[in-house]
Amino acid sequence: MLSKVATIIAISNYLYLRTMPGNTFGNLFSITTYGESHGPAIGVIIDGCPPGVKVDMDLLEADLQRRKPGQSKITTQRKESDSCEVLSGVFEGVTTGTPISLLIRNSDQRSKDYDHIKDTYRPSHADMTYDQKYGHRDYRGGGRSSARETAARVAAGAFAKMLLSDSGISVRAYVSAVGDLKTEKTYSELDLDQTDSNIIRCPDPIVAEKMIEKIAAIKKEGDTIGGVISGVIQGMVPGLGDPVFDKLHADLGKAMLSINAAKGFEYGSGFAGTLMKGSEHNDIIENIDGVFRTSTNHSGGIQGGISNGMDITFSVAFKPIATLIQKQKSIKADGTSTEVMGKGRHDPCVLPRAVPIVEAMASIVIADHLLRQRTLNK
Amino acid sequence: MLSKVATIIAISNYLYLRTMPGNTFGNLFSITTYGESHGPAIGVIIDGCPPGVKVDMDLLEADLQRRKPGQSKITTQRKESDSCEVLSGVFEGVTTGTPISLLIRNSDQRSKDYDHIKDTYRPSHADMTYDQKYGHRDYRGGGRSSARETAARVAAGAFAKMLLSDSGISVRAYVSAVGDLKTEKTYSELDLDQTDSNIIRCPDPIVAEKMIEKIAAIKKEGDTIGGVISGVIQGMVPGLGDPVFDKLHADLGKAMLSINAAKGFEYGSGFAGTLMKGSEHNDIIENIDGVFRTSTNHSGGIQGGISNGMDITFSVAFKPIATLIQKQKSIKADGTSTEVMGKGRHDPCVLPRAVPIVEAMASIVIADHLLRQRTLNK
Amino acid sequence: MLSKVATIIAISNYLYLRTMPGNTFGNLFSITTYGESHGPAIGVIIDGCPPGVKVDMDLLEADLQRRKPGQSKITTQRKESDSCEVLSGVFEGVTTGTPISLLIRNSDQRSKDYDHIKDTYRPSHADMTYDQKYGHRDYRGGGRSSARETAARVAAGAFAKMLLSDSGISVRAYVSAVGDLKTEKTYSELDLDQTDSNIIRCPDPIVAEKMIEKIAAIKKEGDTIGGVISGVIQGMVPGLGDPVFDKLHADLGKAMLSINAAKGFEYGSGFAGTLMKGSEHNDIIENIDGVFRTSTNHSGGIQGGISNGMDITFSVAFKPIATLIQKQKSIKADGTSTEVMGKGRHDPCVLPRAVPIVEAMASIVIADHLLRQRTLNK
Amino acid sequence: MLSKVATIIAISNYLYLRTMPGNTFGNLFSITTYGESHGPAIGVIIDGCPPGVKVDMDLLEADLQRRKPGQSKITTQRKESDSCEVLSGVFEGVTTGTPISLLIRNSDQRSKDYDHIKDTYRPSHADMTYDQKYGHRDYRGGGRSSARETAARVAAGAFAKMLLSDSGISVRAYVSAVGDLKTEKTYSELDLDQTDSNIIRCPDPIVAEKMIEKIAAIKKEGDTIGGVISGVIQGMVPGLGDPVFDKLHADLGKAMLSINAAKGFEYGSGFAGTLMKGSEHNDIIENIDGVFRTSTNHSGGIQGGISNGMDITFSVAFKPIATLIQKQKSIKADGTSTEVMGKGRHDPCVLPRAVPIVEAMASIVIADHLLRQRTLNK
Repeated sequence: MLSKVATIIAISNYLYLRTMPGNTFGNLFSITTYGESHGPAIGVIIDGCPPGVKVDMDLLEADLQRRKPGQSKITTQRKESDSCEVLSGVFEGVTTGTPISLLIRNSDQRSKDYDHIKDTYRPSHADMTYDQKYGHRDYRGGGRSSARETAARVAAGAFAKMLLSDSGISVRAYVSAVGDLKTEKTYSELDLDQTDSNIIRCPDPIVAEKMIEKIAAIKKEGDTIGGVISGVIQGMVPGLGDPVFDKLHADLGKAMLSINAAKGFEYGSGFAGTLMKGSEHNDIIENIDGVFRTSTNHSGGIQGGISNGMDITFSVAFKPIATLIQKQKSIKADGTSTEVMGKGRHDPCVLPRAVPIVEAMASIVIADHLLRQRTLNK
Repeated sequence: MLSKVATIIAISNYLYLRTMPGNTFGNLFSITTYGESHGPAIGVIIDGCPPGVKVDMDLLEADLQRRKPGQSKITTQRKESDSCEVLSGVFEGVTTGTPISLLIRNSDQRSKDYDHIKDTYRPSHADMTYDQKYGHRDYRGGGRSSARETAARVAAGAFAKMLLSDSGISVRAYVSAVGDLKTEKTYSELDLDQTDSNIIRCPDPIVAEKMIEKIAAIKKEGDTIGGVISGVIQGMVPGLGDPVFDKLHADLGKAMLSINAAKGFEYGSGFAGTLMKGSEHNDIIENIDGVFRTSTNHSGGIQGGISNGMDITFSVAFKPIATLIQKQKSIKADGTSTEVMGKGRHDPCVLPRAVPIVEAMASIVIADHLLRQRTLNK
Repeated sequence: MLSKVATIIAISNYLYLRTMPGNTFGNLFSITTYGESHGPAIGVIIDGCPPGVKVDMDLLEADLQRRKPGQSKITTQRKESDSCEVLSGVFEGVTTGTPISLLIRNSDQRSKDYDHIKDTYRPSHADMTYDQKYGHRDYRGGGRSSARETAARVAAGAFAKMLLSDSGISVRAYVSAVGDLKTEKTYSELDLDQTDSNIIRCPDPIVAEKMIEKIAAIKKEGDTIGGVISGVIQGMVPGLGDPVFDKLHADLGKAMLSINAAKGFEYGSGFAGTLMKGSEHNDIIENIDGVFRTSTNHSGGIQGGISNGMDITFSVAFKPIATLIQKQKSIKADGTSTEVMGKGRHDPCVLPRAVPIVEAMASIVIADHLLRQRTLNK
Repeated sequence: MLSKVATIIAISNYLYLRTMPGNTFGNLFSITTYGESHGPAIGVIIDGCPPGVKVDMDLLEADLQRRKPGQSKITTQRKESDSCEVLSGVFEGVTTGTPISLLIRNSDQRSKDYDHIKDTYRPSHADMTYDQKYGHRDYRGGGRSSARETAARVAAGAFAKMLLSDSGISVRAYVSAVGDLKTEKTYSELDLDQTDSNIIRCPDPIVAEKMIEKIAAIKKEGDTIGGVISGVIQGMVPGLGDPVFDKLHADLGKAMLSINAAKGFEYGSGFAGTLMKGSEHNDIIENIDGVFRTSTNHSGGIQGGISNGMDITFSVAFKPIATLIQKQKSIKADGTSTEVMGKGRHDPCVLPRAVPIVEAMASIVIADHLLRQRTLNK
């Protein structure tokens, strides 16, 4: 009998390769994304958004616009139609509590831009690892590993923002470093309303100008550059996050590290905090007119995995984009040597377009834990 | 803000307080921990470990020993019985594929060491956030937020190591920095077999000596210090990890950030990679006698969320421990001012005992993704 | 009791109402449905379908056609456009292993058919329980509790059928009883290819004729009638199902009981098996030319929760549809007495249209366990 | 590179067989059981039980006692120590909201009772399907498919009962039929307090007497008999259950069908309801002094998957136990013919000991949905 099973397995190997799981994020406020960059559409189902949330389509469209390619001279000139249709879960301008299905059609799919890399592994791309994992890959833009997938995250994140907004919580991100150029100001010294006033999305205008120049110069070389995005969550309620595996910063960290090109995550004092002594690092608690606050915030608003009501602060490291308009040595899938050079319309720096993605993923984490905390109330 | 939440909590306390979820980690190789530091026992159920894994109880006991308090002059002198009983899932020296239940009895519970902080919020501890979340806390050692819980992780991680060992995968961690003292050598320049040859667990003997001296000095002040633990996963198979939310480094990041006192995570080039240009950062792929390798490894063994077969490298930032043998200002639960000073037998530096925890959590992530990858085979 | 709940709801309405979870079914082959009967669209994401499955859109359209209203004189005359668009996960006629998103636009939404029941609780409908659960309801056709949702299940089930087809597994259902009229033949005495040859979908032509007459008569009275659908899964591989909670028949049972109007589930000998002695009920195992079979099949193809390779047999009880074209006493949401009478185009009997739904849900369960079993292979 | 993966897979096949998942049940009130009948212990972790539940160890012990073998002349004479130790999650007599770990040591493991079936497949047992699934089996009492596992469910169910008790909900089960002997009385005509007054646990004393005689006679023949257990949930709150896949009766059905030897499940009118017309079956809603009730209860307390506050009624069909003290034909694992006869101390009828298991699983389902409903409140 066992041999019969073995035979079936042997036969069916012929037909199937493997599946791709991991398309869902979040527990109570959960999102499931679908779609490839060169198929008919991408989209997302949000399951668990409570009813009664006022839907702000302008916010959603604005965030999609911020993520959109072709928005400035320092982003790719590729055009995407990011118009988003709401298929379910919204009625008379508010959410109904049922699954919210969001649909974004694809367009301007210049698949032939990718023909030259059909059999070639681009350095530091997912091309080789896809083949190693799945035995095949969709060479037309990266399939599910395409950054196009993040548009669905941004759309879902807009609903998380609407939910948080009702609780007075705001999630904001900005570019704090491009290569070695960084703002020396903390978020409280910056006017975060200025983030979108320049195309690099750094609210420090003088540094922003230098960053833009740097990226323009690097683009001219056909090269790319990395940097850091910082996030701030204000108006936090205390008590969000769990004490063991699902610490609030652990879920934030996973969310950030799941964004394309992310290389690191830190919150509060982060890596710099490792240089401090406990007597310097500890945040002294004070009772200010009945509100318990800490005089410093090395904890980044999270202690023992649980929010303490102070602002949550974190940073995400992004590597330089792998696609260069330069010739690089590489190999083909058959192991022979080759050279590869990007032909498409690629970004010299992922940072400005990643700002709304960081905000979206952070908002989804906070919304999820906000609902989880509600399960604790009766 | 706090008072509004407090009101809601006060109302809902009437019937119940709240539950604590988030005690499970992993999908196919999943662990669920239980137990408080001052209850009868702690433990873990491993569900999903395949049958046929040879059980190495010496490895398990050795790792528990490495995590154990009281092991050296630079760790707490508190004693814990970390003897571990296997209640199920192992038969005739191998795993059976059924849930593996591991039990560690508690002992030496000097609860009265904690009496002085019964009503007091220690700075940068989970005391206040616990009250904010649950409306109550177990002041006897921190309840579920106690580092005692990590013994269960280490025990479960030993089974993950046994599973990985059969696939030729090894997971190793070491202390790479204590405060501003750090080894300048990369892991390949170090002899990782020397990690346990000194009490700080840094395989660079000269730096290790300085680290131990520094910690001893800081301990004398009643103070504490942070640092960095680096991890290396060798013998990796390519293809592990998913392309969207469950990227291999995103799951590793969450695992590391869920360890007590962790403040940051980076892999491969990490935060330093943000300073590089794409032409410097890209890892060129080579075909070396039929094996596809990269000439550099800024990717840290992971591209597009999927392992490429190169060594996986990552670092975890740990803050200085919050409990000081110094007087600090703080407040009581009722908001009145007070002073607090640790009386227990606390660690001046979390790092040496955290090394096996880092290894355990990393092993569980890789074991989980190894099994997930097997679902792709037929 | 109700008033107490109502008070709690009233208080909590102030900020939000409540969310509706439970829109996902399946573990490795998982479906998430969305959409209301009177919104823009319904649809489903299938996550976990392996790549390489040949997509048979004719099968999908045929099954949607079988579930569609208005298909015969004994079903509702309501029209639905069940044309299904594949948005992702299929490329060049085969699945790619990425999430498959299926979209079905709504049309012919005669919302005003429901105006008369806006404030009225229809007997044995979900109207009152929706209000009790959510504090509100979408009276236009039942919202998520509408049978319209099952079109998404049928579409997803078609992909499960395609997957099973490659393993030689077929899932078939038929009407075995309408009220007290039932076929006395077992499935092996019937020609299941004849199921769709009549509008009631009973493969026993003589009984089918009587069933159709009975339903026509009951329809004339404005009344409705229940019945039983039987299912048969042939070409089964042994070894599917788990020994504890996720027994194969437990998951089949949940799937069937999740279909609108289902009241009971049995497999193998079912309730009749309770009348037997062990010596009569036990299925003797035989070795027939190297294949291990049982001489009888009271086990219904499942022993200890795990398939044994024999045909799986089960039955599902369906109650008479609650909407009558008769006046019935009821109450309004405010508690005042009223009368209610269906005005829409309703079915006198759910059975013929439920046959493809039973097949779809059974196919999804078997596909899920087929993939789960593959995780056991290396 | 791909071929390297293939080689690793081929090598590792040698070492591993497959894992056994599916050891967790429930979403917010979730239980994970572990342990084999002939290992050191069995047990369960309850995760998600809210804090503040008063722990009634007498209730827990009493329910274990009701499930225990050897309790009467019509059950197996095998002895089990079902003494249960609470390892975590309970402090000062109430639950703390942390995971509750319950441990039951095994004893009286007469493994040699099973030696005669080491290589033999017992008819209608899980022996053959285990081999088909896992390629191996623990012949000493059935491994995880042993009914011993249900002791852990009963222990966990006791905590669910304590939780429900605080909301005024009671879950009760009783034997309603043994073979063709059944009580004709409905639960409201019976005194459910009398259920435990006789050893068959049927609250109809005259029928109970006949049932006991029948089982005694069948036991004398070395044979076994099936029957039906009915369940009643009283004091229900309306609003529990979800409208799509997680209908309250669908989750109850899965819970019941996951109990060893279960063959069918029905609720409310069940299979008998298929014989009714809608005008007979519909439950007319009445407003009785501000409480909305139905005049009949064919719905079994659940409409559209959601509880309506009426009593929930359901029945579970159990087959006759497969182990006979009679010779039966069978085959060995190698396919050769043999005869098999039970030698152990087996039950002639599963029903009396299954009553507390039915109550436990039903309690866990209701507790889970009670917590899920709380997530909807703010």
